[in-house]
Amino acid sequence: MTILAAIKGWNVEQWTARLAAKLPGRPIVIPGEPYDRRAVHYAVAWKAPPGSFSGLPNLEAIFSLGAGVDHLLGDPKLPDVPILRVVDPDLTNRMSEYVVLHCLKILRQQMRYVRQQGERVWDDDDNQPAARSVRVGMLGLGVLGQDAARKLQVMGFDVAGWSRGPKAVDGLPSFAGEDGLKAFLARTDILVSLLPLTDGTRGVINRSLLDGLARDGRVGGPHLINAGRGGLQVEADVLACLDAGTLASATLDVFETEPLPQDSPLWAHPRVTVTPHNAAMSEPEAVISLIAQQILRYEAGHPLEHVVDRATGY
Amino acid sequence: MTILAAIKGWNVEQWTARLAAKLPGRPIVIPGEPYDRRAVHYAVAWKAPPGSFSGLPNLEAIFSLGAGVDHLLGDPKLPDVPILRVVDPDLTNRMSEYVVLHCLKILRQQMRYVRQQGERVWDDDDNQPAARSVRVGMLGLGVLGQDAARKLQVMGFDVAGWSRGPKAVDGLPSFAGEDGLKAFLARTDILVSLLPLTDGTRGVINRSLLDGLARDGRVGGPHLINAGRGGLQVEADVLACLDAGTLASATLDVFETEPLPQDSPLWAHPRVTVTPHNAAMSEPEAVISLIAQQILRYEAGHPLEHVVDRATGY
Ligand SMILES: NC(=O)c1ccc[n+]([C@@H]2O[C@H](COP(=O)([O-])OP(=O)(O)OC[C@H]3O[C@@H](n4cnc5c(N)ncnc54)[C@H](OP(=O)(O)O)[C@@H]3O)[C@@H](O)[C@H]2O)c1
Ligand SMILES: NC(=O)c1ccc[n+]([C@@H]2O[C@H](COP(=O)([O-])OP(=O)(O)OC[C@H]3O[C@@H](n4cnc5c(N)ncnc54)[C@H](OP(=O)(O)O)[C@@H]3O)[C@@H](O)[C@H]2O)c1
Repeated sequence: MTILAAIKGWNVEQWTARLAAKLPGRPIVIPGEPYDRRAVHYAVAWKAPPGSFSGLPNLEAIFSLGAGVDHLLGDPKLPDVPILRVVDPDLTNRMSEYVVLHCLKILRQQMRYVRQQGERVWDDDDNQPAARSVRVGMLGLGVLGQDAARKLQVMGFDVAGWSRGPKAVDGLPSFAGEDGLKAFLARTDILVSLLPLTDGTRGVINRSLLDGLARDGRVGGPHLINAGRGGLQVEADVLACLDAGTLASATLDVFETEPLPQDSPLWAHPRVTVTPHNAAMSEPEAVISLIAQQILRYEAGHPLEHVVDRATGY
Repeated sequence: MTILAAIKGWNVEQWTARLAAKLPGRPIVIPGEPYDRRAVHYAVAWKAPPGSFSGLPNLEAIFSLGAGVDHLLGDPKLPDVPILRVVDPDLTNRMSEYVVLHCLKILRQQMRYVRQQGERVWDDDDNQPAARSVRVGMLGLGVLGQDAARKLQVMGFDVAGWSRGPKAVDGLPSFAGEDGLKAFLARTDILVSLLPLTDGTRGVINRSLLDGLARDGRVGGPHLINAGRGGLQVEADVLACLDAGTLASATLDVFETEPLPQDSPLWAHPRVTVTPHNAAMSEPEAVISLIAQQILRYEAGHPLEHVVDRATGY
């Protein structure tokens, strides 16, 4: 019942130590070290190189350490076992912190006041819109999108959502699929992307989508917040729309290439906010507890939860 | 039934035009113009000079155009008529926007990421506290304090409040008066002030209070947000505490002197955020509607609402 921990870009030890603590008595191995491949029954994974999970004849499940599984599904040698994603209330809350923070930053023109402070200018704005007159559009109404939508509503924003299939969420107007996209965009002043990266969503945030956003809003033109995945956005289009005035600002936690290359024009663009893909970090303690519970439940005969649909990619 | 509009510092016309629209047929006069003082039955007021309301023998009520009434109660010639304050859901929501924005800004170290972006530094923080492990203390649990507290709880923060008398708010630990202050401060990482300015609160945010804040929190030392009134804070003490490391940051919407003087050291302090007293602006349309309703209800024999207690000053 060995567990393989195939983790790249994060501190491996902080994950393996917790695995050992939560599932005592099970060997935990890492790629590159010698180990008995037939003993591996489970894997925990984050951005492991393609092929990391082949040649493991007794593998039963692969647990992603983050909410996204795009880092796994691109692996052509991915074995045909259940892929599980993290659904962790702590991670969900953190994403909503990020989304609400940046929607309020836009609504309340916080960057303007930071600038004014630097120039010792005292200038209020007696024509500030209230949250209720600003329309947020949530691209993706999954675990993260729904929580963020609800909290934005509590703050007063006028929120709607867009998902692949029709979605009935209490009190939340929603639009679905290609057919619903145009009407959704036309009522959106702040577009928040919490989509997974799949074959169906790659590059969806492009010029044509951004051109469809509302032009009659109260926040000086449409704004983009992407905290889903960098592959969702066409950065050249985002920049072109910013410069053409089609987009008033972009707040990006994720990028086509991460870390964001030093020469990216996004860094210094006056209307771009860059954060280093940490809108909602997985907390090792919480994530490993959830995975350990899943393994123990599974071994007691219960079905695995949050299994990814390999056809849709999320 | 003339209405006197005694307004300083704001665009007078945008208020009087709305008064005329909501209460047609009533003369509206402004100070400095000749008018029949005996005809004045009501006054609407914002920062009018002392004495503005004396010599009006038939005055029945004075309506403050903002939530605070400190601008009125300091007038030694204030006649003995009911003073009413604004309780407007729109204004309340706006204040909560401000409070939640700045609490999240602190929690999510937004100013750090702005700096990092300026330096093209990609550096996440894998030890970010979640909102639930950050304790917000609300000084003042009135209309504004309670709404902000509830919304901070929705975002996950661990919130408690402090008021003059004991206060039972569902799910919100609260402390009262001098006796409760020490314990309240000791569990506070982010102190939010939404107190009115009265004889009992002037200068309350001073060195001794700030020294009492928690030192064992997750956000790099205690933080102050004051959106009540400038007279609540002793700015020399706030600056001394920032420089001594007792205070990690201060976010101030209100100041001892407004506009904030050009030579105030607050403008350029690296850990101070200055906003120009617009955390929650009164929206003329909403405020005048509420006042017009009150006048019509009163004339129909109903009691006035939101009358200020002149003994406590709020
Ligand atoms: N930046 C960060 O720190 C961070 C942290 C965690 C997660 N994330 C990202 O956030 C993503 C979302 O997480 P989640 O837990 O909310 O996922 P989820 O529960 O699987 O929800 C995905 C949502 O996207 C919609 N969707 C998928 N494909 C679509 C398409 N082609 N067209 C329209 N809608 C589509 C789904 O529609 P249906 O409802 O119709 O199925 C669903 O509403 C993750 O995949 C990850 O990439 C980022
Ligand atoms: N910056 C802005 O743009 C802006 C906008 C609007 C309002 N404001 C300010 O916000 C203030 C609060 O508004 P509000 O509508 O929430 O007022 P409120 O409903 O009258 O509430 C006042 C709160 O302060 C507490 N309090 C008063 N004196 C106290 C004392 N000596 N010790 C401890 N607690 C005391 C009261 O305690 P009890 O509950 O025990 O009575 C009450 O909880 C206004 O007075 C105004 O100055 C600022």
